[in-house]
Amino acid sequence: MTLRVGVIGTGMIGQDHIRRLTQVLSGVRVVAVTDIDQGRALTAAPEGAEVFDTPQALIRSESVQAVVICSWGPAHEEQLLECISAGKPVFCEKPLVTSEAAAIRVMDAEVAFGRRLVQVGFMRRFDGDYRRLKAVIDGGTLGAPLLYHSVHRNASVPEGLYTSDMPLNDTLVHDADISRWLLDDEITGVEVRVPRRSLRGKDLRDPTLVLLHTVSGALVDVEISVNIGYGYDIRGEVSCEEGVASLPNRPATVISDHHGIRQAIPEDWRERFIDAYDQEFREWIAAAGQGTATGPSTWDGYAATLVADAALRAVESGHLEPVRMRGKPALYGVPVAVAA
Amino acid sequence: MTLRVGVIGTGMIGQDHIRRLTQVLSGVRVVAVTDIDQGRALTAAPEGAEVFDTPQALIRSESVQAVVICSWGPAHEEQLLECISAGKPVFCEKPLVTSEAAAIRVMDAEVAFGRRLVQVGFMRRFDGDYRRLKAVIDGGTLGAPLLYHSVHRNASVPEGLYTSDMPLNDTLVHDADISRWLLDDEITGVEVRVPRRSLRGKDLRDPTLVLLHTVSGALVDVEISVNIGYGYDIRGEVSCEEGVASLPNRPATVISDHHGIRQAIPEDWRERFIDAYDQEFREWIAAAGQGTATGPSTWDGYAATLVADAALRAVESGHLEPVRMRGKPALYGVPVAVAA
Amino acid sequence: MTLRVGVIGTGMIGQDHIRRLTQVLSGVRVVAVTDIDQGRALTAAPEGAEVFDTPQALIRSESVQAVVICSWGPAHEEQLLECISAGKPVFCEKPLVTSEAAAIRVMDAEVAFGRRLVQVGFMRRFDGDYRRLKAVIDGGTLGAPLLYHSVHRNASVPEGLYTSDMPLNDTLVHDADISRWLLDDEITGVEVRVPRRSLRGKDLRDPTLVLLHTVSGALVDVEISVNIGYGYDIRGEVSCEEGVASLPNRPATVISDHHGIRQAIPEDWRERFIDAYDQEFREWIAAAGQGTATGPSTWDGYAATLVADAALRAVESGHLEPVRMRGKPALYGVPVAVAA
Amino acid sequence: MTLRVGVIGTGMIGQDHIRRLTQVLSGVRVVAVTDIDQGRALTAAPEGAEVFDTPQALIRSESVQAVVICSWGPAHEEQLLECISAGKPVFCEKPLVTSEAAAIRVMDAEVAFGRRLVQVGFMRRFDGDYRRLKAVIDGGTLGAPLLYHSVHRNASVPEGLYTSDMPLNDTLVHDADISRWLLDDEITGVEVRVPRRSLRGKDLRDPTLVLLHTVSGALVDVEISVNIGYGYDIRGEVSCEEGVASLPNRPATVISDHHGIRQAIPEDWRERFIDAYDQEFREWIAAAGQGTATGPSTWDGYAATLVADAALRAVESGHLEPVRMRGKPALYGVPVAVAA
Repeated sequence: MTLRVGVIGTGMIGQDHIRRLTQVLSGVRVVAVTDIDQGRALTAAPEGAEVFDTPQALIRSESVQAVVICSWGPAHEEQLLECISAGKPVFCEKPLVTSEAAAIRVMDAEVAFGRRLVQVGFMRRFDGDYRRLKAVIDGGTLGAPLLYHSVHRNASVPEGLYTSDMPLNDTLVHDADISRWLLDDEITGVEVRVPRRSLRGKDLRDPTLVLLHTVSGALVDVEISVNIGYGYDIRGEVSCEEGVASLPNRPATVISDHHGIRQAIPEDWRERFIDAYDQEFREWIAAAGQGTATGPSTWDGYAATLVADAALRAVESGHLEPVRMRGKPALYGVPVAVAA
Repeated sequence: MTLRVGVIGTGMIGQDHIRRLTQVLSGVRVVAVTDIDQGRALTAAPEGAEVFDTPQALIRSESVQAVVICSWGPAHEEQLLECISAGKPVFCEKPLVTSEAAAIRVMDAEVAFGRRLVQVGFMRRFDGDYRRLKAVIDGGTLGAPLLYHSVHRNASVPEGLYTSDMPLNDTLVHDADISRWLLDDEITGVEVRVPRRSLRGKDLRDPTLVLLHTVSGALVDVEISVNIGYGYDIRGEVSCEEGVASLPNRPATVISDHHGIRQAIPEDWRERFIDAYDQEFREWIAAAGQGTATGPSTWDGYAATLVADAALRAVESGHLEPVRMRGKPALYGVPVAVAA
Repeated sequence: MTLRVGVIGTGMIGQDHIRRLTQVLSGVRVVAVTDIDQGRALTAAPEGAEVFDTPQALIRSESVQAVVICSWGPAHEEQLLECISAGKPVFCEKPLVTSEAAAIRVMDAEVAFGRRLVQVGFMRRFDGDYRRLKAVIDGGTLGAPLLYHSVHRNASVPEGLYTSDMPLNDTLVHDADISRWLLDDEITGVEVRVPRRSLRGKDLRDPTLVLLHTVSGALVDVEISVNIGYGYDIRGEVSCEEGVASLPNRPATVISDHHGIRQAIPEDWRERFIDAYDQEFREWIAAAGQGTATGPSTWDGYAATLVADAALRAVESGHLEPVRMRGKPALYGVPVAVAA
Repeated sequence: MTLRVGVIGTGMIGQDHIRRLTQVLSGVRVVAVTDIDQGRALTAAPEGAEVFDTPQALIRSESVQAVVICSWGPAHEEQLLECISAGKPVFCEKPLVTSEAAAIRVMDAEVAFGRRLVQVGFMRRFDGDYRRLKAVIDGGTLGAPLLYHSVHRNASVPEGLYTSDMPLNDTLVHDADISRWLLDDEITGVEVRVPRRSLRGKDLRDPTLVLLHTVSGALVDVEISVNIGYGYDIRGEVSCEEGVASLPNRPATVISDHHGIRQAIPEDWRERFIDAYDQEFREWIAAAGQGTATGPSTWDGYAATLVADAALRAVESGHLEPVRMRGKPALYGVPVAVAA
């Protein structure tokens, strides 16, 4: 059985997902595309796919069983609501939406529908290294997690396009989401500290140090460096009561030469997370084929929105800014309990 | 376009390949299966696949575009010749065949056909770690490869079923093939040295140390330990003129606890090479869709057969046993030149 | 030429230094000891050493050229002032003194004397790993240091004797001192965050997360875990503008067995810093032989006292507590300039 | 109590040992030196040391309690015999002597004297990494050692001075000695294989692959590369029945930059084994102070001589060349038993 998918938005990430759905993964076919730039949609459409004029038409088409949203963030809310209204499973690239109010509207609609339909594009949860790390923590042999040290380093960001807010409302969401998932916890507050700036970043506020407070009391410190030059370097270490668990180095040839004994570092997120993206869609296809969704949910997208908002407030105030989540609908699982 | 595949042999490895072709990979469909055990074939056949009485009938069927051979070794020659006669691309699990004469007959048939049709199941060539290692060597910055140290350790082998010849005619072929491929070289002779036996292996001749001599003069030493207990540990290190390149540890959570700072080792070859198997078939599907084959060839299967034969002679004689290959047909690429 | 040394305090650390000065190092001889427990002094005294009734008598003795203070903290001020008054080089175990006022009195005396006489026992500065790390940063190829992540983990602490203040006024001083030294910077403020407690520590506030703010704007985050069970694990990573430099794992046999591929972790600080202690005294002997001192100075001891005080305030207030240092006397080198 | 030492030979290594005995180690004093170049001896002599005209005069001097021999190899036999005749402990740099017959004469003299007096300069046995490796093997948790893989890489050797025999009669002795010690075994035969030469080495036979056969049946393969360019890289891995134990990387700052994540490799043997040399003499001083010797013995020097001779024969013959040792005198411990 083959899942018939429509793709909204055929920019860089949309094209990459079309390639993935067409050439890499089994059990799926791209039957429809749409884009605000009709020409781009025509170019990106794989053989046999229909090009629709509007997202709504695509979502409503009987030929489309499930939807992939790769449009820009401000358009997501309307498209998500349309998918939910049509009862169709939908994969939505991050950000889920761009405001708390919008997140709540999407959540209310999905809860009213009564079944999960939305998967948000937090691909790290599908990465083998993170999954093995979580399995170690969940295994319990190291005791409860107390501290999580997350490092998020980009070789560079596009000058002019990437602003000083983006470490906090764009980059941080990955660390925040993976922290919530690894620790099985919710974030209750955010602090931001701004160290000496890197001269590489010109006027950019970079690096940034973020502290995330959680319901359990575990603390997360996040180093965000977006102009480190040498590569895309994602690290994570969880200090537990009885030991410590960390992400490994990426597998790379061990070279001994006049630079020392060394291993290459990934250049960018595409190289680092290529398998995670594939796996993310593999699981989405399986769930969508059952008319539902698993993985990162609307609730997770809502949490990310609140954390980003709090981080932006925190960098201004210098204080601990609270993250106040509404009660967790049962659709999204059991709420995190406060530690005794 | 979807490749329609017939699978011959539905034992453990056949079933795994059916799963792979059905659930993991895109652009392919298993339309036919056959097995000497008809009941097993019926059970293994995916939805919509026809069960054939004989390999010949399957190969000749118009519904089958390409063939996967997972039968036992002695049956391979006839099935391969049938595929070549039918002009159908074929993936053949190792061993290609079980004698030098058989290898030559298959090679002659393929050469006469005039186009590559056969891919042999040396999956290591599709593993990311080996591919990156080869890219470093081929890049040339380390100079010519002079020594290759290959380590092949199995946690255990089935007692009674695995004999003292099998390190040399079953296990070694992987190291021999990957050596030829990494070094872009041919093996000219084999020596075997038998150290003190491991008490874990009871009557088994284990471990074994093998030396492979090559056309270029590079030397390969291979440690084969098939009862090491702790895991499936595959290592490789190439000493070149200007530096050294090695396979990395497998990615695994770095745990610091009372056992030290540590990373898990794969349990077996399934865990170690799961991605390589997928990639092996991904590339086979692409080539088979074009009516041909890439990757490990009949020539490579022939070389493996000669090395295994020489290794068995060498363990008896204690001497360097020559590997004498026929001239390389142009179909299989440029012959390895003797170094100046 | 052999340096004649008197040792004040013959408890555990005093005995260890007597062993070091007697059996390990060249160019030095322990000629005098004293202790409030006269019997312990008699036992600890090496062959030929005189046992003095009081620290003052030992310091004033003509046979003593230089002094090692291993008494308890509250006694240090008087003994240091006596050494300075006698113009004798002195090695003082940490803490230098136990209050800011005392530190200033010692500093004033040394400045009035006009030559450095005091070396404080911050042994990490003599550790090969830290020295190589500093050399990399000072080399400048990685650009300016922006963030320093320091991890200080003890297997356990003596229950009942080690209180919740001690991570901040006893353990933290090592991280604070090494941060100042590595970054060539001064600390301007301290924040403390208290995550979920480890159940291993019973009533102890453990772990603790500390943020140190510096003159240059570099930020230091310190994880202090004093009950981690698995070993004594000291880590450090400096994020610079162009790259990152970290302490390596300690050299330990790489074992591959059923626990994985692994290396042992030091059990305690004795094992971890044994070479650093030797080197610390080697350099002290060399300088004392010249009638002066190098290495960690009274200024560094003063800074440590202020940081500890600020950390204790910060854990109560929850705020950034400033560290306000007096002007740096020229005797202690060039003051750290505020970054442009 | 201070050991009064006389040093014979004040070339590079002699000067380094004088520095070590004078400035680094405790309990020892260099009271006498001699050299065939009297001027060099005068320059190298530390304050207060007497310069002797001949080795014999130095050895016979009442002021000298123990002797360090750093002269060239052919002079060792006579000087060792003189020391034994005088009943004085002696440290002798490798090679012990330059022929099997000479080794036997020294051994006979020492045995006749009835107490060990000679320590040979195999410094690797004093290196922390090797000692920890041996402790793991001796601990027995990994079972019996079956294979030892030894890698000996030099960045470069002096062109013209270093000949093609020297990997076998000069470099190999370190690997041979450490193999005997690690495995608690004796070498019974040597094979040499010569791979493709490195172009870096011009006319030099480099690299070389050596197989050492042992009494227990364990096999040792040694890679000797003396022109690898990138550094001095000493590795060792022991495959045992239940697991594997290896030397770790040397501790070096972990740098992440555009060359990857990397650690420096030692430049040469001085850097690599600096601590081992110190420890070697520390233990020699302790034993010499008791009028005897521990560590590598005349027996070990004799074994090294036989292995070097066999290796030179083996590279010519292409065959397994036997190493036939005489019966082991009780003075040198228990003989290695043949494995059941």
